[in-house]
Amino acid sequence: MIHETTRLTNKEVAAWLLERDGFLILTHRRPDGDALGSAAGLCAGLRAIGKQAYILENPETTERYLEYTHNYLPPPDFVPQVVISVDTADAGILQKNAWVYAERVDLCIDHHASNTGYAAYSCVDTDCAACGEVVYEILMALSGEISAAATPLYVALSTDTGCFCYANVTAETLEIASRLVRAGADHWRVNKRLFRTKSRARMALDGALLSGLRFSHDDRVALALVTQARMAETGVTEDDLDDIANIPNQAEGVQVGIVVRELPDGSCKISVRTIPGVDANAICRKFGGGGHPMAAGCVVDMEPEDAAVALEIAAGEALGM
Amino acid sequence: MIHETTRLTNKEVAAWLLERDGFLILTHRRPDGDALGSAAGLCAGLRAIGKQAYILENPETTERYLEYTHNYLPPPDFVPQVVISVDTADAGILQKNAWVYAERVDLCIDHHASNTGYAAYSCVDTDCAACGEVVYEILMALSGEISAAATPLYVALSTDTGCFCYANVTAETLEIASRLVRAGADHWRVNKRLFRTKSRARMALDGALLSGLRFSHDDRVALALVTQARMAETGVTEDDLDDIANIPNQAEGVQVGIVVRELPDGSCKISVRTIPGVDANAICRKFGGGGHPMAAGCVVDMEPEDAAVALEIAAGEALGM
Repeated sequence: MIHETTRLTNKEVAAWLLERDGFLILTHRRPDGDALGSAAGLCAGLRAIGKQAYILENPETTERYLEYTHNYLPPPDFVPQVVISVDTADAGILQKNAWVYAERVDLCIDHHASNTGYAAYSCVDTDCAACGEVVYEILMALSGEISAAATPLYVALSTDTGCFCYANVTAETLEIASRLVRAGADHWRVNKRLFRTKSRARMALDGALLSGLRFSHDDRVALALVTQARMAETGVTEDDLDDIANIPNQAEGVQVGIVVRELPDGSCKISVRTIPGVDANAICRKFGGGGHPMAAGCVVDMEPEDAAVALEIAAGEALGM
Repeated sequence: MIHETTRLTNKEVAAWLLERDGFLILTHRRPDGDALGSAAGLCAGLRAIGKQAYILENPETTERYLEYTHNYLPPPDFVPQVVISVDTADAGILQKNAWVYAERVDLCIDHHASNTGYAAYSCVDTDCAACGEVVYEILMALSGEISAAATPLYVALSTDTGCFCYANVTAETLEIASRLVRAGADHWRVNKRLFRTKSRARMALDGALLSGLRFSHDDRVALALVTQARMAETGVTEDDLDDIANIPNQAEGVQVGIVVRELPDGSCKISVRTIPGVDANAICRKFGGGGHPMAAGCVVDMEPEDAAVALEIAAGEALGM
């Protein structure tokens, strides 16, 4: 980083936004519900006070999230005056078609402790379970008008917390969710679509994964291997794989849950989920990745079986075994 | 019913409780988290204001919920002055060892629309997702002291809403959950234990069920058959079967999800889950059961395969097919 970022509070961000116009909002690679919901909520909130705001199309957006951003895509001739990233800890993980903006992000709104301060201004609240909570607080400071933002922000909060079930949930998360529902968030439909609906292909994959978990280290480590072959067998697509990282760690007594997923290019995407006191971030940093203390990831250039063994060893080390 | 029940508001219940002492709290057969959490929360709240209060031991309490009630069991010589039932729509489904009290329930606190008004006084709020919400409002009116009740009431709310994911969740549900967490509810541990931990036997059973769902009626009906043989094969116990009713209805496009579970006595316990507009209660009433519009159940005296076919037909009728 050449410059140092200037930290802003939610209220300062609101004042900063009020003074500006012509916003373009960026998300990260393999965008999740928090990134896309935060982007859509922010965009809706800015438009609600008469600002011009768009979301840069993210080609990796999966089917389930398309509806939240597709109304906010910029016209071809749009030239942004202000560039904002959401939920993006480092410029290096910005969506690939945003490289042209990587060195000129004006404001970053985020909740990751690993945020590198790559933007000119940053508003990073690591106490928030979801970036959507930060956006909610900013919109409340900006205008209090959140009705158009309610559903996408509900998507942001609910997806980053496994529908309010993960350890990152706080009293504030639930309170904001309550206010979003009161403001008109279509929570029933979101919950049904995102958390209580599985394609038949995904149900078949889950059936196979649940029957074939690999346990090691006195059953304190559980690993699921999702190869391209198994994906083809069950017919799942990328869009069917939401929250798959949280399957192995549900087995009773498991302290480190690992999913090794073979990507089409032959590399493997690793997801690690741990209990408090076991550092998922540290495990993934060994392989050039990172994340949160209990939820982290990395991509490794290994065969699936080799990646599985390497991760099992790293997990064992993290457990002091 | 010989008498007619007197309806009380939350505030009237609080005043009613203040005037009385020597409480015994009853739950229903096969008690769930809402029944036991409501009972424990109410008992804790009454004790917090110096009242003598106990919960009648329910022998059908499963391992996962024992910890919430075991400190509140009455001494052998306890003679109740006031008998209260929670989460129990009809005297006929009271826990079996409470038959002696069936005709003398003084107060019923509940949230079921099907409540039959069997108690002398009733406080039934059908807008509440969980009976625990009603108990929360009563305790707030009673003293505002909810710290000892926070964890059991969180158990009540979270278990009846699938950790805030079902269609019954309202803004109030989330707001009360937020206040319970703020009051000290141990939500992380509850979520991990009740929603994000499965025994290895249950994981194996889920694997088998997901791989073997029966689809009918243009895939709008999905049915899972849990026979005693399959339970024995996978090693699951009663305590492992929580929320199993919500597996088939997760398949994309399914409008009626049915679980037929063979009981040790050869009868079958049926759970039906539907989407809005398809009446689960009506389906189960045909077999002498009932419940909520989108979540109902019954017990039928049939072989599992016969029960499955009968339910598939009833589901088809409910879909107008």
